[in-house]
Amino acid sequence: MTVAKEMRLKAIGVVHSPFREPDEVPRGKELRECESQIEIYPEYMEGLKDVEGFSHLFILYWMHRAPPAALLAKPRLDDRMRGLFATRAPHRPNPLGLSLVRLIKVERNILKVKGLDAIDQSPVIDIKPYIPSPEEKQEIKIGWLEGKINLS
Amino acid sequence: MTVAKEMRLKAIGVVHSPFREPDEVPRGKELRECESQIEIYPEYMEGLKDVEGFSHLFILYWMHRAPPAALLAKPRLDDRMRGLFATRAPHRPNPLGLSLVRLIKVERNILKVKGLDAIDQSPVIDIKPYIPSPEEKQEIKIGWLEGKINLS
Repeated sequence: MTVAKEMRLKAIGVVHSPFREPDEVPRGKELRECESQIEIYPEYMEGLKDVEGFSHLFILYWMHRAPPAALLAKPRLDDRMRGLFATRAPHRPNPLGLSLVRLIKVERNILKVKGLDAIDQSPVIDIKPYIPSPEEKQEIKIGWLEGKINLS
Repeated sequence: MTVAKEMRLKAIGVVHSPFREPDEVPRGKELRECESQIEIYPEYMEGLKDVEGFSHLFILYWMHRAPPAALLAKPRLDDRMRGLFATRAPHRPNPLGLSLVRLIKVERNILKVKGLDAIDQSPVIDIKPYIPSPEEKQEIKIGWLEGKINLS
C-alpha cells in the first residue's frame, strides 16, 4: 500500500485572539474565561451547519510561531527535560495545536469561543465536535504532571 | 504579520492496526477493546521519554484513504446531511484524525494502545498526553447526536 508522501495542510480560517505573543497566553481558569474568535473562510462556511448545537469543540490550529522542533522539552511546570510527546510544548515535528473550547455563539462564519490557547493569526486547520468518551471516566494517569496541576 | 504559507506535515511514525479498510473500523465499546500498535520512527524516539506515565493519549494521524473533501456529510448515525465540522467524517479539507486512546505499554519505539480508530498504515502526525479539562465536567451539548449515542 502506498502512503501519501505529501501531507499538506490548508488553512480553513484564522484565529482572532487577544494574545499577540505565545507567552501572553494564560493557563487554567484564566484562559477558560478568555474569548477568541475563529473566522472560517467563506469557501468553508457551509461546513459550519449544525455546529451551533455543540457546547464544546476541538480546534486544531497551526502554531505558526512555534520554535524549531526539539524532542525534549522543559515544561513550564517542571524543572526537568521531558520527552516532547509527554508534553504540550509547541516545538513539535508538526506544530499542530489542539484546544478544547467552549462554543459561545456562531455568527455566520465567525465562531465565538472561550478557552482557545492559540495566538492571534494562527491558521485554523480543523474543527471537530467534542463528544465525551467513556475513556474519560476511566482512571486517568498523568505521569510527570501528577501533583503539578489541579484537575478540578 | 505574515502567516506561514506552507504547512507541510511529516510522518513521525505509522499505525499498525487490524483494520485494513475504513469500513472495518468498529465503534464504541468494540473499538475500545481493539489493540493497535503505533510505530514511532527511530529519529523521533527520544520524544517518547516519560510517555509511559500517561494512561491516555491523543493520537493525531493522517487519514490517507479519506475520500475528497466535502462540506456536508451524512453521518452513519443520521439520515440527514450535516455540516462537516459538526461531524467526525473523514472527508475533511485537512484529513486529520484525532483519537483518544488508552496506552497499554511502551516498548522502545512501539506504543501498544487500545481504541485507535485509524486504519493500518496511517501516518502518525503527533502524540499529545491526555490531560483532563475542567470543561469536560461542564454541561455538554452534542447537537444532532443527542439521543443517538450512549455516552455512558
